[in-house]
Amino acid sequence: MGDIVCKFGGSSLADARQMQKVAQIVRSDSRRRFVVPSAPGKRSDQDTKITDLLYSCHELARQQMDIGDPFRKIEARFMDLIGELDVQVDMASLLQQVRREIEDGASKAFVASRGEFLGSHVMASLLGATFVDSAEVVRFRPDGRFDPDCYALLASKLSGSGLFVIPGFYGADAHGNICTFTRGGSDITGAIVARAIGAEVYENWTDVSGLLMADPRMVDNPLGVEDITYREIRELSYMGASVFHDEAMFPVREVNIPIHIRNTNRPEDKGTYIRPTRPLTDRLIAGVAGRPNFTMLNIEKALMNQTRGFGLQVLEVIAKYGISYDHTPSGIDTISVIMSDGQLGDKGDALVADITRILEPDRVELISGLALIATVGEGMSHRVGIAARLFGALSQASVNVRVIDQGASEINIIVGVEEADLKRAIEAIYQAFIE
Amino acid sequence: MGDIVCKFGGSSLADARQMQKVAQIVRSDSRRRFVVPSAPGKRSDQDTKITDLLYSCHELARQQMDIGDPFRKIEARFMDLIGELDVQVDMASLLQQVRREIEDGASKAFVASRGEFLGSHVMASLLGATFVDSAEVVRFRPDGRFDPDCYALLASKLSGSGLFVIPGFYGADAHGNICTFTRGGSDITGAIVARAIGAEVYENWTDVSGLLMADPRMVDNPLGVEDITYREIRELSYMGASVFHDEAMFPVREVNIPIHIRNTNRPEDKGTYIRPTRPLTDRLIAGVAGRPNFTMLNIEKALMNQTRGFGLQVLEVIAKYGISYDHTPSGIDTISVIMSDGQLGDKGDALVADITRILEPDRVELISGLALIATVGEGMSHRVGIAARLFGALSQASVNVRVIDQGASEINIIVGVEEADLKRAIEAIYQAFIE
Repeated sequence: MGDIVCKFGGSSLADARQMQKVAQIVRSDSRRRFVVPSAPGKRSDQDTKITDLLYSCHELARQQMDIGDPFRKIEARFMDLIGELDVQVDMASLLQQVRREIEDGASKAFVASRGEFLGSHVMASLLGATFVDSAEVVRFRPDGRFDPDCYALLASKLSGSGLFVIPGFYGADAHGNICTFTRGGSDITGAIVARAIGAEVYENWTDVSGLLMADPRMVDNPLGVEDITYREIRELSYMGASVFHDEAMFPVREVNIPIHIRNTNRPEDKGTYIRPTRPLTDRLIAGVAGRPNFTMLNIEKALMNQTRGFGLQVLEVIAKYGISYDHTPSGIDTISVIMSDGQLGDKGDALVADITRILEPDRVELISGLALIATVGEGMSHRVGIAARLFGALSQASVNVRVIDQGASEINIIVGVEEADLKRAIEAIYQAFIE
Repeated sequence: MGDIVCKFGGSSLADARQMQKVAQIVRSDSRRRFVVPSAPGKRSDQDTKITDLLYSCHELARQQMDIGDPFRKIEARFMDLIGELDVQVDMASLLQQVRREIEDGASKAFVASRGEFLGSHVMASLLGATFVDSAEVVRFRPDGRFDPDCYALLASKLSGSGLFVIPGFYGADAHGNICTFTRGGSDITGAIVARAIGAEVYENWTDVSGLLMADPRMVDNPLGVEDITYREIRELSYMGASVFHDEAMFPVREVNIPIHIRNTNRPEDKGTYIRPTRPLTDRLIAGVAGRPNFTMLNIEKALMNQTRGFGLQVLEVIAKYGISYDHTPSGIDTISVIMSDGQLGDKGDALVADITRILEPDRVELISGLALIATVGEGMSHRVGIAARLFGALSQASVNVRVIDQGASEINIIVGVEEADLKRAIEAIYQAFIE
């Protein structure tokens, strides 16, 4: 019977009551032996996350100002926690040490990581678990990326019986300097631990009962998703579905460990399973997601198709500007490059000038205000009528389709529409596929 | 009132009766002052084109064998022509000279061009027109391509009153060596003459009454097309619609001279106008065309979208193999490169090995047996419901859509299907858009 790694998000650890829920969840299944906490999150909308208070401390310390105000709030949160939970942690000493380190000019990454560090001490004590500092087991390479060589180290430090608590979000380089994953990166720590110990399942506990088929800001009360594949979720999350941290899937995906997204506040809910494959149901798609703020560079040149290397030259110019593009749909004498407005930045005029000079096109133009929508489902490309249903729905909703891209990905049809049509388009697609 | 350039295809010049039709057409409108003949074509299905007989002569001469057999057939055709037409051409001397040149080792291009050369002499005499040898007015550059600098020369040689006959298909380089356009290239000569003299319209006389909305081998009795734009015809002809020679449009397209495709045997038919713009009618598309024999290279790599320059690297490998590709649809972690089987040739295995080595993808595969279909119409991208109608039709015909590409080209949706579905798909799309 395999072990379970449970990662808990900030809202699951915001106060003593939430931490008690976590403890109850962990205790309710003896396979839950590895716990990865985030830093305590907000207790209410008006509250401040521990990590944000730590950033304030670091900023004040950097300017050689007094960190007392924000640090006292941190102190109060943790002292309240241990008081209410009645756990045996010498929190006062830990806090004093952290304060001294901040005042002595500790790095931003170090300071940011202390929320997970302190919170994990509380959790370890509450659970009677062994605390394993991520600084000693999660290794970063000199380029700032995770070093997969440390899986063996992790596995060895996490062997033995009993429970283990491993703080999320951070690790250290070969010199012991603290490094952090991008924000939300406790999901990555959880996945790394799951991979290292060969977990049966990686549970990701949050404050929602799993994924929804569409963004609830776009669609009223969208249905939940019980099963979804790694590939499906990756395509959806790229397009804006934001429940699960993208890169966090890869450590477990490579070894086919399923991810189970669950709700700490409603542990009875089924949640969402993310797996290598899923049972095919009547529902043809896993979900639909979209986002605005794309720009399309359109290039037209007579006989382009007979000019070998034309597309290559276009991409070379794009690369010169350091722009990462998303799609390059093409006609016979036309090619488009679709990129996010963030990537394009203020380089548009220079880019058009360069394209004009180097490629001598008949026409070149930048069209902004484009939204991209991904309609995602395993095996879509092998079923007849998917495109008909999709474009029928968009037509009925009077949405004009500006771009279509379907190719190697057998699970995704990408459609470009005007930004003003984004919500209407997503609603129409969602309704067409849940009927 | 502007002049008209008339190009006549081989079947319009196959025998005396056809040449009389041509003469009548030219005489019926005084604006028709510039005539560009092809070489005489087949008189029946069993017949041989003059140009093919000439190629036989050249091949025999190259091997120092007797050219008598094929040359006698050429002689008979031309002597019959001048006899039946009762024109004053010293055909015997012209033929004798051509025979001597072939036997003396004239180049393949020179030999090939003699059909147009001799036929144009007949036509000039029949019309009482001035014969202008293309070798003296149509110039090729050292790289073998047409030299636009000769437009002024052409305009000057073709000034003055009366009719002019200019043989199609050939010209000469700066040293006077005969060069030819690719086969079917008399269309190009006609377009060049039309451009040089600033024609009001470029008439292209053939044995069909213009373009059809679909290939009659795919669709029973497809409707004719009265008006189509340069851009539409270019997209359709690329995809296999073969009535009009692709490159022949560009000389006239650049200066907005309309092309009028007409039937020598049915001059009363309306034919097809090819123009910069066309009146928008109830018909949403200009036509649909498709062809088989494409292969799709599919590459999948986790986090591809975050790897800057991934697509560029893929195209660099493709370019290294000298492959000209057609489309590169992409998903989030996938990119496809679609190319014709002819371009791919036997390079598939080496290409896959190189992609694997250089890009380290998670998966790479070649999928052959793909057919591409272009559904073409001006302004399509600005009308709601086009995609719905297209994909609805394909769904009803049980055609599975494997690839979709629509982008900068506002007049073309490209769809990839299995080759076995090609005919059914084209029929379905055609029926959906003529209803």
